[in-house]
Amino acid sequence: MSGLLGVAVMGAGHMGADHIRRLDRVVSGARVAAVADPDAERAKEAVGGIDGATVHTDVEAALDAPGVEAVLIASPGEAHEEALLAAFARGLPVLCEKPMAPDSAGALRVVEAEARLGRRLAQIGFMRRYDAEYRQLKSLLDGGRLGRPLMLHCVHRNVSSPPHFTSAMLVTSSVSHEIDAARWLLGQELSAVTVLRPRPSASAPRGLLDPQLVLFETEGGAVVDVEIFVNCGFGYEVRCEAVCEAGSARIGETRGMLVTGAGSARQEVPQDYLVRFSDAYDREVRAWVDATRRGRVTGPDAWDGYAAATVAEAGARALETGVRTPVELAPRPPLRDPA
Amino acid sequence: MSGLLGVAVMGAGHMGADHIRRLDRVVSGARVAAVADPDAERAKEAVGGIDGATVHTDVEAALDAPGVEAVLIASPGEAHEEALLAAFARGLPVLCEKPMAPDSAGALRVVEAEARLGRRLAQIGFMRRYDAEYRQLKSLLDGGRLGRPLMLHCVHRNVSSPPHFTSAMLVTSSVSHEIDAARWLLGQELSAVTVLRPRPSASAPRGLLDPQLVLFETEGGAVVDVEIFVNCGFGYEVRCEAVCEAGSARIGETRGMLVTGAGSARQEVPQDYLVRFSDAYDREVRAWVDATRRGRVTGPDAWDGYAAATVAEAGARALETGVRTPVELAPRPPLRDPA
Amino acid sequence: MSGLLGVAVMGAGHMGADHIRRLDRVVSGARVAAVADPDAERAKEAVGGIDGATVHTDVEAALDAPGVEAVLIASPGEAHEEALLAAFARGLPVLCEKPMAPDSAGALRVVEAEARLGRRLAQIGFMRRYDAEYRQLKSLLDGGRLGRPLMLHCVHRNVSSPPHFTSAMLVTSSVSHEIDAARWLLGQELSAVTVLRPRPSASAPRGLLDPQLVLFETEGGAVVDVEIFVNCGFGYEVRCEAVCEAGSARIGETRGMLVTGAGSARQEVPQDYLVRFSDAYDREVRAWVDATRRGRVTGPDAWDGYAAATVAEAGARALETGVRTPVELAPRPPLRDPA
Amino acid sequence: MSGLLGVAVMGAGHMGADHIRRLDRVVSGARVAAVADPDAERAKEAVGGIDGATVHTDVEAALDAPGVEAVLIASPGEAHEEALLAAFARGLPVLCEKPMAPDSAGALRVVEAEARLGRRLAQIGFMRRYDAEYRQLKSLLDGGRLGRPLMLHCVHRNVSSPPHFTSAMLVTSSVSHEIDAARWLLGQELSAVTVLRPRPSASAPRGLLDPQLVLFETEGGAVVDVEIFVNCGFGYEVRCEAVCEAGSARIGETRGMLVTGAGSARQEVPQDYLVRFSDAYDREVRAWVDATRRGRVTGPDAWDGYAAATVAEAGARALETGVRTPVELAPRPPLRDPA
Repeated sequence: MSGLLGVAVMGAGHMGADHIRRLDRVVSGARVAAVADPDAERAKEAVGGIDGATVHTDVEAALDAPGVEAVLIASPGEAHEEALLAAFARGLPVLCEKPMAPDSAGALRVVEAEARLGRRLAQIGFMRRYDAEYRQLKSLLDGGRLGRPLMLHCVHRNVSSPPHFTSAMLVTSSVSHEIDAARWLLGQELSAVTVLRPRPSASAPRGLLDPQLVLFETEGGAVVDVEIFVNCGFGYEVRCEAVCEAGSARIGETRGMLVTGAGSARQEVPQDYLVRFSDAYDREVRAWVDATRRGRVTGPDAWDGYAAATVAEAGARALETGVRTPVELAPRPPLRDPA
Repeated sequence: MSGLLGVAVMGAGHMGADHIRRLDRVVSGARVAAVADPDAERAKEAVGGIDGATVHTDVEAALDAPGVEAVLIASPGEAHEEALLAAFARGLPVLCEKPMAPDSAGALRVVEAEARLGRRLAQIGFMRRYDAEYRQLKSLLDGGRLGRPLMLHCVHRNVSSPPHFTSAMLVTSSVSHEIDAARWLLGQELSAVTVLRPRPSASAPRGLLDPQLVLFETEGGAVVDVEIFVNCGFGYEVRCEAVCEAGSARIGETRGMLVTGAGSARQEVPQDYLVRFSDAYDREVRAWVDATRRGRVTGPDAWDGYAAATVAEAGARALETGVRTPVELAPRPPLRDPA
Repeated sequence: MSGLLGVAVMGAGHMGADHIRRLDRVVSGARVAAVADPDAERAKEAVGGIDGATVHTDVEAALDAPGVEAVLIASPGEAHEEALLAAFARGLPVLCEKPMAPDSAGALRVVEAEARLGRRLAQIGFMRRYDAEYRQLKSLLDGGRLGRPLMLHCVHRNVSSPPHFTSAMLVTSSVSHEIDAARWLLGQELSAVTVLRPRPSASAPRGLLDPQLVLFETEGGAVVDVEIFVNCGFGYEVRCEAVCEAGSARIGETRGMLVTGAGSARQEVPQDYLVRFSDAYDREVRAWVDATRRGRVTGPDAWDGYAAATVAEAGARALETGVRTPVELAPRPPLRDPA
Repeated sequence: MSGLLGVAVMGAGHMGADHIRRLDRVVSGARVAAVADPDAERAKEAVGGIDGATVHTDVEAALDAPGVEAVLIASPGEAHEEALLAAFARGLPVLCEKPMAPDSAGALRVVEAEARLGRRLAQIGFMRRYDAEYRQLKSLLDGGRLGRPLMLHCVHRNVSSPPHFTSAMLVTSSVSHEIDAARWLLGQELSAVTVLRPRPSASAPRGLLDPQLVLFETEGGAVVDVEIFVNCGFGYEVRCEAVCEAGSARIGETRGMLVTGAGSARQEVPQDYLVRFSDAYDREVRAWVDATRRGRVTGPDAWDGYAAATVAEAGARALETGVRTPVELAPRPPLRDPA
C-alpha cells in the first residue's frame, strides 16, 4: 500500500477522540477517513479540521464511506459486536478497543464469526502488550533466563472510579487488563478465580467493594494476585512482579524526575492511564497501521478478547459467591493470519 | 540496677552463639553469666574467653548459677516451654526466641502460667518490631495520615531452605514473622487463612510445596497476602507494602551502594537474615536489657507468641485442606506489666 | 497545509537514515520528498521503497526537487553552512542537526544570514529540549517552586568514542549537548569555562584526555559542572541535577524493569544515545513538522547554535591552556518568528 | 583487659553528651569514668546517673581521675591540642573528634609529639570511615573490580548553618569530611584545590558564600568535586559517586520507607548528621573501645588529622584568591601501631 491507510473510527467519545487525534497527528501512514457516533455533534467536533474525513451517525454508512480501508472501534462495549460483524462482512481489518464484547456469549459469537471467515481480521486493544516495560518483561520471561514463572503480583490503582461503576466492574472492566497481561506473559489460560473483599475504603462510593484482591490460578499451576483499588485517591499505578524459579522482575515502578525538597525526595505519580500508557497506545496503533498496510493482522486476537471476557465473568461470580470459581472456556476454533 | 545485667543464655547453636556475642560485645549494660546447652562442648566454645560465664548442660542449673538475673532462650523450639516455666518459677525476666512453643497448646500453657504469676516476665523474639523500617511503617500507620490500612502485601524469600524443612514449615516457621508483623502493624487479630499452592519451583527439594501464597483476613476486615518462597536462590528479601485509604507505604526495598558497570546498574541483595536484620537483633536485645534493668517488661508478649502459634497452625491446616480456615483463639487472660 | 509536508533530507549516514525512517514511518504529517548524499548508493539505500522520494548527490538539486517544502540537515557538520544558506536562499524552513557549523565563525555567518532574511527559518537539533525528563526539569525551574538555580551537576558517558575522536571533541562535540541544555535550563549565557583533566582512563585510546571535568560559569552567577567520559565502557548515561535555593531535582536516573537474581537487583543501562533519546528525536521532529505545517518556526534557533559553538571553542582553549577562559559572544542580532 | 574500659570524656556539649550516652548505653565494654567541661553544670548534667563517673572542669584532673584508661576528646577544636598532649604525656589512648587541631601548625605539633612517643595513641574522629556504605565503597575500590578511580563527585548539604559560620568554614569545617573521605577512598594525598563560588543562595545568611564548588586534584591524577551547601533548607544529604575506569559506584542515596500518596512517591530525607551517621558513630566508638581493650590503636591517625587540616587551609586560601592553590605537606614522620 503506497498511500495513507484510510481508517473509519467508531465512537467519538473520550477514547475515540484520542484515537482520532493519534491517527491524524501522531502515527504516520494512516488518515481518518470517516467517524461514526450516534451524537453527530460530537463526531463533528472530533474530526474538526481533518481533511477528507466524513461524519456519520450510522456504523454501516461509515464503513461504506469513500476511502475506508480499516476500522478502529472505540465506541461503548455494547456497540462492539455489531461493528465487528459489519467490518467482517466487508472484509475490513479492525482494531477493537477492549472489551471486545460486554459478555462472553457475545465474545464467542465474534470468535465464531471470524472463524467462519477463515482468516483473521480483528486485533483487540489490550494496549499493555505494547508498553515498553511489559514488553521487556515478556521478553525476559520468554528468554527463560529466570526459569519458569511461578507467580505474578499485580497492583492496579486508579484515583477514583467513574459514576455508576459497580463492584463487579472492578473485576470485569479494570482487572480485564491484568487478565490479558497474565495470559500473555505466562502463555497460559487462567483456570480458576477467587476474590477476597477487604472492608471497603472510606473513600469508595457507598456500596462499592473497593479494593479487592483477585486471585487467579493458571492451567500450568502459576498463581496471579491482583490488587484492584479504583478509588485510591493518590494516582494511577500499575505494577507487576513476575516471580520465577531463579529470580524476579518488576515493572511499573515510579520513574522520572526526582525532586528533593522540604524533607523528602519525591517522584511524581501519574494521575491517569492516558498519561501512563500514552506511549503504549501510540505504539499499538502504529503497529496496527503498519501491519494492516502490509496486509497482516497481528497483536491480541478475538480469542484473547473472548478468554478475557470469560475469565472476567467467572471473576464476577467469584466476587458474588466468595468462593473459588473455575473458568470454563469453549473449544478454541482455528484462526489464520491472512498472510 | 547499677551493675551489668547477668544473663543466662539457653542454647549455644547458631542463634544462641550470636546472642552470646551480642550480649558480650555489642550491647551495653549486660554480661553473659551462664550458658546452657545439652552439648557441653558447644556451650564451652560459645562462651570461650568471656569472664565470669559458667557453662551448663542443664537449664535449671544455669538459671541457678551465680549472678543470673535474666534469661535469653535461644534453644530449639521444643525446649522453650520448659525453660520459660523454669524462669517464671524463679521470677526471672525472659527474652524467648520465636517460636515461643512448637504448638498452640504449649503456647497457651505458657500464657496461662504467666497469667497465674500476675505479672509479665516474658518478651518474645519477634525482632522485626525492632527493625528501623518496620518501625517507620508502624509509626506511619498509627499516625493515621494515610487513613485505615486495607491490605498488606508481603514478600518473604530465602536463598534456600534448611534440610528437613517441610511444606507446613513455610507457614508455621517462615510466615510466623509475617503473622506477628501483620498483627502488630494492624493492631488486629487474624481471623482466617487460605493458602494457594503454585506448582513448586524446580529449585525446591522434591516434595516441598515452595513457593506458597498465604492469605490472611483480619477481624477488622483487612486482607494480608504473603508470598513465601524459601528456595528462591538469589537472596534474602523481606518486603511489605501497606495499602491504606489515602496512600500506600513500602518497606524492604533494596538499598545501599549502587554500582553501574557492564550494561547494568546493580544493588546487592543480602543473602541472610542475620545480615538484613542484624540491626533489629541488636536493637531488640538492647531494648530488652534496658527495660529489664529498669524493672520493666516491654515488647511482644506471651499472647503474641500464642496468637502467632495458633494462626500458624490454622495456616498449616489451610495448606493441607486447600480451603479457607478460620482461626480460633482462646480467651485472652489479663497480663500486667510489672512496673 | 492540508497534504503531507515534503522534506528534503541532507545526508544519508547513520543519523540521516534514522531521520528518513522517522519521517517515513513514525511521524505523521510529513513525507520524504528528496534525499541528498555525496554517496549516491547510500542515499538510494536509505530511501529504498519510499514512494515519491528522489535521490541526489547535490544539495541544491535536492532542495529544488519537486515537492520539497522543508529541509532536514543531517550531513556532517562541515556541510551544514552551505546547506543552511541554500535553504535560506529558497525560503525553506530547516531542521539542522547539531553542530550548526564546525566553528563559531561559520555559526555567526549563519546567524547573520538569517538575520538578513528578517525572519526565522532554522531550528537547531538540540534534541534534549524534547526529552520528557528535561522538559519536566525545565518546567520545574521555570515555575520557580525551588527558587533560583545555583548549580547544575551533569554526567555524560558513552560506551566508547568513535575513531579519530580528539580530546578537544569531548568538549566541542559531546559537551555541546550540556552547553545547550545549561543555557536553556538556566535561561542564561555561559560566560567562562575551565577544564580539569584527570589522568586518562586505561580504556581510553592512547593520547585521548578522557574523562574530563568541564566547569562553566554563567552570566547570572550559576556554576555548571560536567563529567564527560566517552570511553566509560559500560553504557550511555546522561544525568543532570539542578541545585536550587529550596531543593534539587535530578533527571536521567536508570529506569525500567528491575530484575532481582543471583545476589543483586539490576536495571539495564542503555548502550546508545539513539535508545536513550529515541523519544526525544521523535518528539523533536514531530514538533518541527507540526510547527512548519502551521507556518511557524519554534525550538532552538540559530543563535543557540552560535552560542553553543562559541562556548565549545572557549572550552577547547580552556582544555589546552588549563586555565579559566572567558566566553566572548558577538552582539545578538534580532530574529523574528515568521508567524 | 577483662573489666570495662574507663573513659574520660573531654567536653559535655552536643557532641560530648552524645558520646557519653553512647559509652554508657550503647557500646559494650566501656564505661564513663570522668567528664571534663569548663561548664561544671553542663558536665554534671551530662553524667547524671552514671555510676562511678567523676566531674571536672580541668582536663588534667579528669585524666588523672581514678579508673581513667582512655580519653575521648569532644571539646571545641581549640582545646584539642592541649588535651591530646596531656593524654600523650600519660600514655593514654585517645579518640579525638575532628578537627584534630584548629590549624595545620597545631596539627603538625600533635603529629610530631606522637612521633616522639614512638608509638600511636591517637585515633581521629573521621566517622565516615565507619559508615556502612562508605565501607562498601572503599572495599569495592580496593578490590579493583571497577579499575582505577578517576573522579569522585561529592554532595554535602545541611539544612542550615550554625550562627557565626564563615565562608571559609564551608571548606575548613564542612568539607573536611570529604577531604578525609577522598584521601581514604583513593589512598592518595590531595595536591591542589580550586574553589568556584556561585552567586549565594537567598537562604544563606548575608555575606556567606554558600554554596561553593570545591575541586581537588590528587597526587595520582584523580579529580574530586564537592558541592558544599550548608543552607539548602531541605535536609542533610551526603552523597558520593566514584567514577572508575570500568564502572561507577554511588552511595548516599535516599533510602527507607517509600510512601505513595497525594500524587507523589516520597522518601524521607534525614534532617541531621546525627541521624544519618548515627550507626557510623556507634561503630566508630565500638571499634575504638574494642581495639583499645586489645591494646591496639587503629582507624584514622594523627597524620590524617594533619593532612585534612593542611588541605582545608589551602582550600580556604583558594576560596579567597579564586585561583588553584597547591597543597604543601610537611614530611611524614613514622608512626608505629603499639601492637
